[in-house]
Amino acid sequence: MTTAHAADEAAIRQLIDKLAEAIRAMDFEGLKACFAPDMVSFDVAGPPLQTVGAGAKLKNWEVAFAVFQPPLGYEVRDLTITVGNDVAFGHSFNRFSGTLENGDRIGPWVRYTAGFRKIDGNWVIAHDQVSVPVDFGSGRPLVNLEP
Amino acid sequence: MTTAHAADEAAIRQLIDKLAEAIRAMDFEGLKACFAPDMVSFDVAGPPLQTVGAGAKLKNWEVAFAVFQPPLGYEVRDLTITVGNDVAFGHSFNRFSGTLENGDRIGPWVRYTAGFRKIDGNWVIAHDQVSVPVDFGSGRPLVNLEP
Repeated sequence: MTTAHAADEAAIRQLIDKLAEAIRAMDFEGLKACFAPDMVSFDVAGPPLQTVGAGAKLKNWEVAFAVFQPPLGYEVRDLTITVGNDVAFGHSFNRFSGTLENGDRIGPWVRYTAGFRKIDGNWVIAHDQVSVPVDFGSGRPLVNLEP
Repeated sequence: MTTAHAADEAAIRQLIDKLAEAIRAMDFEGLKACFAPDMVSFDVAGPPLQTVGAGAKLKNWEVAFAVFQPPLGYEVRDLTITVGNDVAFGHSFNRFSGTLENGDRIGPWVRYTAGFRKIDGNWVIAHDQVSVPVDFGSGRPLVNLEP
């Protein structure tokens, strides 16, 4: 890996740290700063199949935040990043967790993939896909798997 | 977009065409040629959360092929690719379809995201995530959405 690529990978890891901090703090401005304006998201919950634009992604987070009482957790595990000149992609296992109104604390692990672009010197998330696998035998989404 | 990027995007579109053809033909050698040896896949069916290596990905396809009677369909819609020097990512809606033993023809649309690397001048799929969203209200995976 070149020195430039090492610096870019470090910047992308900082971006993911910023994303996790913004989620824990329910900080919409902080979240918005992580996303390309024309971001396309294939998010874990649906419908629809996709949302287009950073504003629509923020609405997904607004819905997710409403499920939980604070404090919120956001953990990122096994983050792997492949860096090019101004394009990169990465994947990890992420867990968004919190306490339901009935007091149960829940937080499924999801598979997280992101496409990154360097715009005006700053790396942002231009695309993401977030999901759990499906057990097609039972027809159920698998929300209890551990990485 | 530079001319080099246009040529790379065309090469990646050919790679996805090759992938679709190999799936329709249940051609394991053709499929293998599309994948990086150390490919990490977050596939639509589970468990597990991920598979590591092209061999494990081919096993996923073997299981999927066993569900259907030929002829198999594989359709790719709205493929969008972001290209860097030797790293790229892309996303699309894909539909793998076929006929069950009972005669029903099925084929859910999935969200497809891929991370590409150019290795020795050839673009290959180094990572993918394939999924349907979950309706957390009903706890069901959404296998009937149309793009």
